[in-house]
Order: sequence, then structure tokens, then C-alpha cells
Amino acid sequence: MNNSKIEKLQSLLNKEGLDALAIVPGSNFLYLTGGNFHLMERPTILIISKHRKPIAILPVLEIDSFKKLNIDSDIVEWQDSDGYQSAFIKAFEKLGVVKKIGIEGQRMRVFESQAIEKASPNIEIINAHKFINNIRLKKDENEIINLQKAIKIAEKTLNETIKYVDIDKTEMEIKNFLIQQLYHFGAEGIAFDPIVLAGGNSALPHGHSSDYKIKKGDCLLFDFGATVNGYHSDITRTFFIKSASDYQKNFYTTVLKANKIGLEISKPGLSLHELDDSVLSTLEKSEFSKFIVHKTGHGLGLDVHEDPYVMRKNYDLLEEGMVITIEPGLYKKESLGVRIEDDVLITKDGCKSLTTFSKELTII
Amino acid sequence: MNNSKIEKLQSLLNKEGLDALAIVPGSNFLYLTGGNFHLMERPTILIISKHRKPIAILPVLEIDSFKKLNIDSDIVEWQDSDGYQSAFIKAFEKLGVVKKIGIEGQRMRVFESQAIEKASPNIEIINAHKFINNIRLKKDENEIINLQKAIKIAEKTLNETIKYVDIDKTEMEIKNFLIQQLYHFGAEGIAFDPIVLAGGNSALPHGHSSDYKIKKGDCLLFDFGATVNGYHSDITRTFFIKSASDYQKNFYTTVLKANKIGLEISKPGLSLHELDDSVLSTLEKSEFSKFIVHKTGHGLGLDVHEDPYVMRKNYDLLEEGMVITIEPGLYKKESLGVRIEDDVLITKDGCKSLTTFSKELTII
Repeated sequence: MNNSKIEKLQSLLNKEGLDALAIVPGSNFLYLTGGNFHLMERPTILIISKHRKPIAILPVLEIDSFKKLNIDSDIVEWQDSDGYQSAFIKAFEKLGVVKKIGIEGQRMRVFESQAIEKASPNIEIINAHKFINNIRLKKDENEIINLQKAIKIAEKTLNETIKYVDIDKTEMEIKNFLIQQLYHFGAEGIAFDPIVLAGGNSALPHGHSSDYKIKKGDCLLFDFGATVNGYHSDITRTFFIKSASDYQKNFYTTVLKANKIGLEISKPGLSLHELDDSVLSTLEKSEFSKFIVHKTGHGLGLDVHEDPYVMRKNYDLLEEGMVITIEPGLYKKESLGVRIEDDVLITKDGCKSLTTFSKELTII
Repeated sequence: MNNSKIEKLQSLLNKEGLDALAIVPGSNFLYLTGGNFHLMERPTILIISKHRKPIAILPVLEIDSFKKLNIDSDIVEWQDSDGYQSAFIKAFEKLGVVKKIGIEGQRMRVFESQAIEKASPNIEIINAHKFINNIRLKKDENEIINLQKAIKIAEKTLNETIKYVDIDKTEMEIKNFLIQQLYHFGAEGIAFDPIVLAGGNSALPHGHSSDYKIKKGDCLLFDFGATVNGYHSDITRTFFIKSASDYQKNFYTTVLKANKIGLEISKPGLSLHELDDSVLSTLEKSEFSKFIVHKTGHGLGLDVHEDPYVMRKNYDLLEEGMVITIEPGLYKKESLGVRIEDDVLITKDGCKSLTTFSKELTII
């Protein structure tokens, strides 16, 4: 039974001024119910009300999977050929008066919120993203074990993959090999489409691997992760092929310095703003300041990118049990990109990098 | 330059009564621009107006990737630390009066539509899902080649995987092997998390693989696909382990009959309703009618599930160049699930299954 997490959320609704929440498939749904459903063209929604037990709006083909979760709830089902709108109407009749409903603004899609509005025309739909995600901010022991397993698989994979790397292999070939290794080492999935970029391509923070053949003097950037029981790892390392110029070495060392400062200062009570500011300042003070394009990092758990975001103007504070990435990067257009990313657990009086793979400048 | 597809869409806006469209990362974005961006916490939106060239709202870290696409457009950028709202405001100032904007209702998330509403308070946001997706309904030669490549990889993978299957192997082990084979044969990605279910688990249409060990007399259902240049295959086959009872054989043969009827009648001019109705009627007339839980199929292309949906009450007509799945299934709770899925191209006067893997009852 996963009802305890749902009850916790229910008990917080009053303080938020919300009558109910609507949760769609994804990390919050998984966290609250244990159910790993698809976010597909068939709306599947769990409504948590402060007054009654939850109502699940389900396409018929998901009912058996949902019942296996043992959630004390009512089910309103719908058939493909009838469409979902009448199920929404039925569910909101059961709910009674709902003035304000909180939704996951970064996950619920417009057609789902429109179905809610149509079922309950005077309802106010509030983006409760932050409130809902807050319950996942601090990881418990079991969650940390899953994250560590996911990191271990990624590190073993990276180890094997850099042995496979050779001049004239393409980014795509290396990426393909890397993915096979992730599964070989027991990943249940990949955290996201791995980023394997060499030479000038590495300067695109979210670039896609191509047929580019790596050559001597290139940098080679890996950003990828494994998934274990829904929990993701997310690790970036940048290597150099056969040789590294002084410029490349300075560039790398600057990013590494920023990464290390992040790890040095992270502890409960430090604000995300301060953390990002210290890391970015390190880069800004260097000769490479014009090559900064992104913030320091993000929370990590059932989502690859989740709260808390490590960025300036986020004045929330780090707390024991949070897991964040620290991943400063520098990107010189069409020439050189370096990013070094660790997955970091905030501990009682500091932090601990769950990532253990070497960060020292490595020529392969 | 991918501008021609954007221009085609622009030219259709008037007839739809829309002033503009907002496209988020995903299949439509990829189709229109060639750009394969992530749908992440950072809004990335292309606004197509009938009056002017497109405006892209981009987080700074995506600008270089976007410029590479060579889209004749204006860019409004935003920095992580400033947030995205001011970029939305700037973009809508540039756009001028927009009364009605069409969005992808099944893809755009609520926080993105809220940012549009905030930037342009009197705007009417219309779910233009169907209108936008319509431009992708009919596949051209190049798209069909990509689909065929994705299917070929899936079929080679299935061939290898059934050789690997053995008693006492778990669903998870087999699934893990299957994924490695997909990449081994050159997939750029998996179309979706593969479904590998045995015995009673197969009765959950969207179940997840577990540690269940397969045993003699089980059925074993595979539903999976490969991705090539963004195009997905989606194939389901169901096998029996070492033996099949008469009941299982009848059950299987009923599903196969429904699948074959779908292939027999599909042709331009037939409605999706009629197609689904004929396939489902075949199942309904059998002794297994109570085990029906889903419709016949869906369109296939840059999305795994896309228009047109093969279901009763969808009176749209099949057209030459559409690619759909025909995938009837029967599910006897905790006992037996059989689904047989082909990827089918509608031709000038009929259809052609792009899937060639044998459908005859096979004991492995």
C-alpha cells in the first residue's frame, strides 16, 4: 500500500488553499502509487481530494494494472470508443465542489487540463508543480540506494566505453556501444538519450551524436545515465583524445575548479542561489567567462531534471537528503565544450559525491 | 532549409481561423524544422504566425543547435536565471495582435500555455492537435524508407531474441537482451520501453516486465520497436513456450483472424470506424468476446501513437500513404494475453504490411 504518501499530500492541501490535486503518469504518480504508467494519448489521472478517497480516471486497458497497486480509491473508467470526457464529468460529480485544483504544470498537458475545465467549468486550475514536487525533495535511504545503483551502472559503462573509443570511430558508434553497456550492466532503462559529442560538436550543451569521426586532439564529452527502479543517474565527463593542448588543459581545469568549489560549499542551509553564484563566479573570473551558457545543476531522482534547481535567484535552501547535480560547463562555439557533472547527496553537515569516477584531466 | 513545411502550415492558418500556432519540441517540431529538441523544464517554442516569419522562444543553451537548422526566423532568448516569462512577452509583442493561437493539446504542457496566456491575456488557446498532425498523416517515400529500416531492425532483433529465450529466464532478462539487440542492429533509440510479458502477465496490455521466470506452456508476448531518424517501428508477436493447449491455440487463432481481416480490408476510402468495427466484430463473434480491452490500432511515424486512430466512431477515411498499426488483442485476466501487431502502409488500392515477421502460431 502506498496510501501513506497520498495521505501526507492530502493533509497538506488545506494549507495550500487547494481542494484537490490531479496527478498524471510520471514521477509523482510513481512516487505516490508505485504505478509506472505511460503518459500517452489516453488520459490517466489520479485525483486526490481533501475530503474523500482518491479517484482514478482510467482507460479500460489500465484498470488491471492500477488495481494491482492496491490504492484505496474509486475508479472511473472510459473506453476508447466513448472518449474520456464523460469519465472526467463523472469523476468531478463524485468529487463534489472543487474550487481550486492543483496540477503538475510541467507535466500535465493542455488537453487534460481542458478536460478538467470542461467537467467543472468554474474550477480554478493552479500550477502546483512546486508543492507536489516538494514531497520528493529529500530522498530516503532506499531512494539513495537506487540512485547509487544507477550511478554504479553508469560508471561501469563509462569505464568500458572509454576502452572502446578509438580514432575514426563516430560519435554514433560510441553512443550505441555505451547504451548497450548500460543495459549489459543491468540498467532498466537509459535516463535520457545519451550525449556523446566530440571536437567542436561538444560546444552544443544538448547536441546530438552524429557521424563525426573522432580525431587526435578532440575533446570527447559523455553525458548520460542509467535508470534503476525509476531512479536516474546523470553523469558527465569530458576526455581528450591522444593529446590536449595547453588551452584545452586550462579550459578543463577551470571547469573542474568550479565543480570542486560546488562540492566544497554544498551543505544544508546554503541557498541554491549562493551555490550557483559561487560556481558561476569561478567561471566568470576566468579568461573563459564568455563561454558560460547554463546554470550549475538540478535535483535528481525519479526525474532526471527535478527540483531543486541550482540557479541564481532560487533562494530555497539545501537540506539534508537532497540529491543535486553539480555540472558547470564552458562552451567555445564550434571548438570546445567541457562539462563535469557529479551527482551529490546533501549530508548532515556537508555533502557527498555519489559519483566516484575520476575527474582529473584524462587523455585516452 | 525546412521552411517549405512551415510555409505550408502557415498557408493553412486562415482556413482554420487561427492567427498563429505554437509548436513545442517533439514530432511536429522535428517534422517542421528538422530539430530534435528535448521537452524539458525549459520552455522551447516555435511560433508560426500567418503574418510574419516564425519566432523561436529559446533557452540560451539551445540557440546554437537551433541556428544550425537554418530556419528563417527571429529568436527571442532567455537565461535560466531570468526565467522565461519575459521572453514570451517579447515574442508576443513582436507578433502583434493574436486572437487565436493553436497549440498541440496532447503535447504542450500547462505551464507553457499559462506563459502564453500571461504574455497575451486576451488570447484564445485552441487545441489544434488534429490540424497540426494532419500534415504528417501521409508519409512520403523517405519517411516510408525510415519506417522500413526501423521495422527491419525490430524483426532482426526478434529473431535473435527468440533464440535467446529459454525456460527459467525472466521477463526482465529477455527484455534487457532484446534492447541490446535493437542497438546492436543499429537502432538510434527504442520506440518505447519494450513490453516483454509471459504467462498471466501478458494479460496486462501495458504491463511491465518483472522477475517472473518463464515456464513451459506460457505464452510470451513481445511489443516493441526501434527508432531510425526519428521514425518508429511498433511490432507485437506472441509465442508459446514448448507447448500450447487447444484453448491457447483457439485464442491465438481468433486474434490472428482479426488481424488478417484488418489487413484484408484496409484501403483508401475505408473509414477508421469501419476498419476497427470489422476487426473488433471478429473478436466479438468468437467465444472470447469478453476479453477485448482495446481498439485496433493507431497511426505510426515520428510518434509511436499518432493520428489516425483506428477506432469506432472515428469516421475519417484511410488515404494512400498513411501508415497504421493493426493490433487486435485478447486478454484473459491472470491467464493469457495475445496481441498480433503489424505496421501497415495504405497503398493506392489496398494496403501492404511493412512487417514481415511470421504470424503463424509458433512454439519456441
